[in-house]
Amino acid sequence: MTRHPIYSLEFFSGIPESILTSIASDSQLRTAVRNQQVITKGSLGDELFFLIKGRLQVIDVTEDGRELCIYIINEGEYFGELAVIDGGSRSTSVVSIGDAELMVMSRHTALQLIYSHPILAERLMKKLAYLVRLSSQNRAMLSIQNPYQRICTVLTTLIRTLPGNLKIIELPPQQSLAGMTNCSRETVSRAIGQLLNAGIAEKDRKTLIVREPERLQHIVQGKITTE
Amino acid sequence: MTRHPIYSLEFFSGIPESILTSIASDSQLRTAVRNQQVITKGSLGDELFFLIKGRLQVIDVTEDGRELCIYIINEGEYFGELAVIDGGSRSTSVVSIGDAELMVMSRHTALQLIYSHPILAERLMKKLAYLVRLSSQNRAMLSIQNPYQRICTVLTTLIRTLPGNLKIIELPPQQSLAGMTNCSRETVSRAIGQLLNAGIAEKDRKTLIVREPERLQHIVQGKITTE
Repeated sequence: MTRHPIYSLEFFSGIPESILTSIASDSQLRTAVRNQQVITKGSLGDELFFLIKGRLQVIDVTEDGRELCIYIINEGEYFGELAVIDGGSRSTSVVSIGDAELMVMSRHTALQLIYSHPILAERLMKKLAYLVRLSSQNRAMLSIQNPYQRICTVLTTLIRTLPGNLKIIELPPQQSLAGMTNCSRETVSRAIGQLLNAGIAEKDRKTLIVREPERLQHIVQGKITTE
Repeated sequence: MTRHPIYSLEFFSGIPESILTSIASDSQLRTAVRNQQVITKGSLGDELFFLIKGRLQVIDVTEDGRELCIYIINEGEYFGELAVIDGGSRSTSVVSIGDAELMVMSRHTALQLIYSHPILAERLMKKLAYLVRLSSQNRAMLSIQNPYQRICTVLTTLIRTLPGNLKIIELPPQQSLAGMTNCSRETVSRAIGQLLNAGIAEKDRKTLIVREPERLQHIVQGKITTE
């Protein structure tokens, strides 16, 4: 028998197994396919989501109808917490990049859990603080005039360090990177090409292996002038 | 003897007076003058601030050196919570618009309070959720092409309803409105002039009295075409 995914979610680490078992039976497991909308901006929502498998993009629709990908949700992360906390409508849409598996918890269960376990309240607060910081960085990034520098800034935020100090970036779709940085898909493609040509990164399918993170950082800081 | 300002702060409503008395003696009262920087972006900070008197502006400095006013802090509100929650550096600067009085609490005291009173954790979470929503609205606002529509959108978010259903806007400095909406001070001045000419609002010193909130809403929604 496969173990319920709730036991491997970092958000719940430290919570007694008996409590997790009872939450697990209260929660639903769902799947999503490529491009499926998991959350629709503006709708009323009263569920907290945990991403068990796959990758999702958080999308905002601008007033003039463009879709901006704001950030990527990775395996093990949760989302949908704003509406759970304040009972308001969904502030952004969430779309599945490929196939995905989700665990879904009712607002009632989620709030009860959070307010009875200070460690969960603390984790949630830290995540919200992170989101506020992210949007503030995002504002600063979008104010950079040079699109190549904007793209490198976003790529830097996506770096993950693997054991052995290998730094990789799981590339979001180019269309998403274009949306995040407010430039065209062609510019994104050219910027990545330049990083490869300069030997700053290597590409392995959809992953960038960052060979020279410091040079990437220099581009972000505007120390290296580019196109 | 004047009562300590802590007893009138909404954030602490419901917290036993004996606890407030002990926090009050642990906290400092400070003053700030016009244009004084209360928090500096990028600095390390371990204090939570409560604005007792005055008005402050939250300012972000963009990569190319422009100052963007993001929002206004009004009497009775608190700020500086991000660094208190996650121990990181200050994400924005805070500058006093005029003379101001502040109550300042150490990070240690603030965290102890928050984690031992779920109602405070809940209030803080709701505020953080509000900040995330605000930045998301901000992104949507900045994507509007027409500057007049952007200015009206920001003005709408500043409306306060007084007893008797009177709707007013305490105008931030024009330079701040210009920063918030990414347009020139002249454009802000012209936009406000148009609202007065059209009878949508009246001006009383630094306060706009909104006579026709629905027409203002129509401009925000792009239903009325303007310059």
